[in-house]
Amino acid sequence: MAPLAPRTGDAVFANVERVNAELFTLTYGAIVRQLLTDLEEVEEVNKQLDQMGYNIGIRLIDEFLAKSNVSRCVDFKETADVIAKVGLKMFLGVTASVTNWDVDGTSCSLVLEDNPLVDFVELPDTCQGLYYCNILSGVIRGALEMVSS
Amino acid sequence: MAPLAPRTGDAVFANVERVNAELFTLTYGAIVRQLLTDLEEVEEVNKQLDQMGYNIGIRLIDEFLAKSNVSRCVDFKETADVIAKVGLKMFLGVTASVTNWDVDGTSCSLVLEDNPLVDFVELPDTCQGLYYCNILSGVIRGALEMVSS
Repeated sequence: MAPLAPRTGDAVFANVERVNAELFTLTYGAIVRQLLTDLEEVEEVNKQLDQMGYNIGIRLIDEFLAKSNVSRCVDFKETADVIAKVGLKMFLGVTASVTNWDVDGTSCSLVLEDNPLVDFVELPDTCQGLYYCNILSGVIRGALEMVSS
Repeated sequence: MAPLAPRTGDAVFANVERVNAELFTLTYGAIVRQLLTDLEEVEEVNKQLDQMGYNIGIRLIDEFLAKSNVSRCVDFKETADVIAKVGLKMFLGVTASVTNWDVDGTSCSLVLEDNPLVDFVELPDTCQGLYYCNILSGVIRGALEMVSS
């Protein structure tokens, strides 16, 4: 049998079970609101969102590996591209651009132009300093930790 | 212009923005876990899930009305059918069966045979009495409240 070819984010996304994005967006908003009420400090909410994302990422990586047929990335640059073009597409239905590399090639930014998590979101002034989408960096952190060695 | 025909849940679901169901399932699990940690009492968690669902439902009804072309239901029986066959399909991608009617026709059960919220979920014994999916009844409560008059 021929080895399976890696699949594009579009192809994978078309073939996974999905739920309505607006339901997801509103559910995520309900989490953030709940955390703000329970934890009070914006800093604590950022931390908790990252931790929740981490717990999700260490599970979600299995689905990613099972469905994407992506093989081990050779370097961090390729890793960033796979997250931006395959991973985010597969789970959120959008892609990101990878920019803002430092000179060593050890840090970069993933910029989501169309982020479903922030649809309809308006933050009051009391939320200064809140990383509203911090769960996403937690997910990526958890997922990468499971495949690093 | 001819009036718009009501659309089936399948047709609507095919045409809305969607995200990966596993991401949604894991995110929902993270909420419940967070609430159990923060609130400690299972009863309080049930209440909070219902309240979060209510806040979601009062927003989600707009998307339902905008996308489904469903007109006002004539009675509670039709309402239950529309929730089971169109509403749940549109947001979760699954349908429910409507059973367990009481003699007055004022209460019934919506039974989800394939509920994406509970994929991979195992509850420890300490969660006796937890209505894990209680957010769903809150969503329905909120949505119905917005269209009742």
